[in-house]
Amino acid sequence: MSKNLEEKSKASNIKSQPKVYVLRWGHRPKRDIRLTTHVALTARALGASGLILSDVEDKNVKATVEKVVKNWGGPFHFEMGTPWRKVVSEWRAKGGIVVHLTAYGENIEASDVMQRIKAQGKDVLVIVGSQKVPGEFFSPEVSDFNVAIGNQPYSECASLAVFLDRFFEGKELTKTFENARLVIIPQQRGKKVVRRMNSEYEAGKEI
Amino acid sequence: MSKNLEEKSKASNIKSQPKVYVLRWGHRPKRDIRLTTHVALTARALGASGLILSDVEDKNVKATVEKVVKNWGGPFHFEMGTPWRKVVSEWRAKGGIVVHLTAYGENIEASDVMQRIKAQGKDVLVIVGSQKVPGEFFSPEVSDFNVAIGNQPYSECASLAVFLDRFFEGKELTKTFENARLVIIPQQRGKKVVRRMNSEYEAGKEI
Repeated sequence: MSKNLEEKSKASNIKSQPKVYVLRWGHRPKRDIRLTTHVALTARALGASGLILSDVEDKNVKATVEKVVKNWGGPFHFEMGTPWRKVVSEWRAKGGIVVHLTAYGENIEASDVMQRIKAQGKDVLVIVGSQKVPGEFFSPEVSDFNVAIGNQPYSECASLAVFLDRFFEGKELTKTFENARLVIIPQQRGKKVVRRMNSEYEAGKEI
Repeated sequence: MSKNLEEKSKASNIKSQPKVYVLRWGHRPKRDIRLTTHVALTARALGASGLILSDVEDKNVKATVEKVVKNWGGPFHFEMGTPWRKVVSEWRAKGGIVVHLTAYGENIEASDVMQRIKAQGKDVLVIVGSQKVPGEFFSPEVSDFNVAIGNQPYSECASLAVFLDRFFEGKELTKTFENARLVIIPQQRGKKVVRRMNSEYEAGKEI
């Protein structure tokens, strides 16, 4: 196989993997701007395809996410204001499954819940709530799986991060983002960022 | 080996594993209360032994961390106000290594940095900063390793979570916390929390 074909094959393999979207529930505008922004950055950096900020709108979060995607690449879908029931019912109607991250759920390490989720081979909507979520989130009408990243008081960013890292088995961390203006070149010491002038990093200007 | 002895052996194995402490740098009182609290909860839930909030004091963060430890168990060390240089120099003097989490560092997935860290077999101080950290953090005088959980804009909670999950290889998520008043019993559906009346969960009252 030529290198070019091999790369295309790899790309199509990646595309055929299940996609993950994150539904962020319970956002309070102003008070939660930074936490929800962190949830969105976590989702993007760890391989999710998008984030839906349900039920409310927050232009600050939208602006930050769009700025990050513009500079650091995508694709990464962002929408807000859609009622959570609508998101969930449309997702399930399309054949996707729903995973609710909660400290009360099955322990991701002690149980086989991650294997059962992966065995489905379906796109996953991950619901990331706040402390008091509607009881319905736990019911079979909403969630296919209730998953705990440890059964302890937690940060939703941390839960989402560990879930995505394990779901994608780390591969998400070496993903190339499309149309990035800025690219970090990993270093043992110091910072190296290049601005992409065209499709090649090498042609980038160090900044 | 009797079950009891086997458990003791397991416990001593866990105790002989390297310990991880987190140094949170750059906290701005009021503005960062929730994020730093999330960093502390992440540290505790994912197996770190403590958190040092360097250079500043914030009674709100302290109160929340202490309340969580009181209800959900420990041990989990918390201190604040100590200058970061003092924390780092004392840590290194005791033979510990320092890992600085930064988007500019070696990629935890694409490089062998995690193997090199584990190969040291030493206690680890993880520095979790904010956007603009002092340049010194990258230097060999401060950090032994600069590690990126993906080279993308990130959340420090997410970075810390993935680092700890990989460092402890998931074992931290089934850890039993000592002196917990409340314990979650994982469920496929719904919530189950018991209040421990004595050393046995079974004797706990469901709440």
